Amino acid sequence: MIKKLAITGGTHGNELTGVYLVKKWKRYPELLKRRNFKTLCLHTNEQSIKEVRRYIDQDLNRSFKSRDLSDESLETHEAKLAKKLNALLGPKGSDTPNVDFIVDLHTTTANMGLSIVVSNESALTWKAIAYLCQMEPALKVYRWQGDEEGAFVDSMAPHGFAIEVGAVPQGVLRADLFLQTEALIYHLLDFFEKFNEGEHFTYDKRLEIYDHQKLVDYPRDSEGDITAMVHEKRQDKDFTLITSGEPIFLMLSGETVCYEGEPYYTIFINEAAYYEKGFAMCLAKKVQIEIEI
Amino acid sequence: MIKKLAITGGTHGNELTGVYLVKKWKRYPELLKRRNFKTLCLHTNEQSIKEVRRYIDQDLNRSFKSRDLSDESLETHEAKLAKKLNALLGPKGSDTPNVDFIVDLHTTTANMGLSIVVSNESALTWKAIAYLCQMEPALKVYRWQGDEEGAFVDSMAPHGFAIEVGAVPQGVLRADLFLQTEALIYHLLDFFEKFNEGEHFTYDKRLEIYDHQKLVDYPRDSEGDITAMVHEKRQDKDFTLITSGEPIFLMLSGETVCYEGEPYYTIFINEAAYYEKGFAMCLAKKVQIEIEI
Repeated sequence: MIKKLAITGGTHGNELTGVYLVKKWKRYPELLKRRNFKTLCLHTNEQSIKEVRRYIDQDLNRSFKSRDLSDESLETHEAKLAKKLNALLGPKGSDTPNVDFIVDLHTTTANMGLSIVVSNESALTWKAIAYLCQMEPALKVYRWQGDEEGAFVDSMAPHGFAIEVGAVPQGVLRADLFLQTEALIYHLLDFFEKFNEGEHFTYDKRLEIYDHQKLVDYPRDSEGDITAMVHEKRQDKDFTLITSGEPIFLMLSGETVCYEGEPYYTIFINEAAYYEKGFAMCLAKKVQIEIEI
Repeated sequence: MIKKLAITGGTHGNELTGVYLVKKWKRYPELLKRRNFKTLCLHTNEQSIKEVRRYIDQDLNRSFKSRDLSDESLETHEAKLAKKLNALLGPKGSDTPNVDFIVDLHTTTANMGLSIVVSNESALTWKAIAYLCQMEPALKVYRWQGDEEGAFVDSMAPHGFAIEVGAVPQGVLRADLFLQTEALIYHLLDFFEKFNEGEHFTYDKRLEIYDHQKLVDYPRDSEGDITAMVHEKRQDKDFTLITSGEPIFLMLSGETVCYEGEPYYTIFINEAAYYEKGFAMCLAKKVQIEIEI
């Protein structure tokens, strides 16, 4: 039984789908009303939304490590904001959190389609994901163990995940992806309504997901500047396999760099925000997992 | 006869195609060498490139009005930068400018393909454009009289234009569009080499271009915030006709807004940087003009 769900948008202020979905639902709150739980809907980083920037001082979606939340010496805009949000929506790790489930709304410049990025192993989280995959067969699920673990907005609650939708540029609202994200949220709310009523779900226990393996950085010079681009044959090929010998980068000099290694699925290819984080794409395995129903 | 051409990149620091083409050519200057003129290749706004932002204080590509260049009271980063650039590449309006032609490299989040944005009426500018259209038949030409006139980087020289290529997100390098822009520059250099040698050009005198008519803003609330998105049926439809009754916006409430007015071609649809400038797209007429050969 869940009592309270939070939908968070604008964790990155230049990802407008979440920013404007939250604005829409604040104007039309009846769209989120369900019989047996409450939904809180909020902007997490008002200042970055105002400036249409990913963040002010540091990435808010990497600011929820337990040790950072208890470190009073951290002075950045987002470190302080994380503590406020944790008081409102967490506290993280609590047995009596203010919110049971957080769904955090993101967009990406990578051609990810409609996807879920999940770092939570709770049975309820995966049950919800399995339901969504049944309702939206094009939905992809990426189990992330990326650059930093346990530091996402959704980690404040015992259950939750992020929705990633793309390709959409930073600072742009695309109607098609806005509508897809909106529809997915209504399915999620429907799931919890049924779950709270004790409905027996009949969907397939096996779920195909993409399991994070490693990060691949751009070729860089001694000063850290990139010296290559994602190769045009790899661009936009998110959730497809790359095998040894296939082009992965195009050097500024014009040479093609080919991938060498185990075959993996490429994800988050050429995401704008990851140039500074130091990766050009993620590599994942496709695996079948079993859901507890 | 031209003596000196300038290729400028990074006028907007988050438009990476121009930023990295300039880096490439600084590393491989022989690629720009031609027999009978010199080419200068430079980043115009180093600070905005470093911060991967369009600008620091104001849009550099709107900072070259003659009255602003002579106004010593202007204190913004870009107002001061414009004066420095004007001393290097101009001075604007001079009979003996340091540079004869400026091509300024841009990208857009709109689906503009490979296009030229031109506000210059000089015969040489149009001769060069006609040559490029012959070499790259997919190239589109947009004669801009947009939000502010005569304030572009390329207005410092007697001849010139901007290249706009898209769709590409801000902060992202796409190999396909990088290569297209690069190829277009080599055609432009070839043109001037032939022009300087007195070659007689034989291409068609008539050129089909898109002539700016007006700007269309998003529906907004009393605080100026957008209350609608570009409709999914209009998104990505740059350089196509819109006629009365066709969907143009989707309100956050879910209603569709239809276009009412003369049939025009829609250009720069849903460009990220134009949300703050106050337009969702430009409307243009397709016209045939005659080039002096």
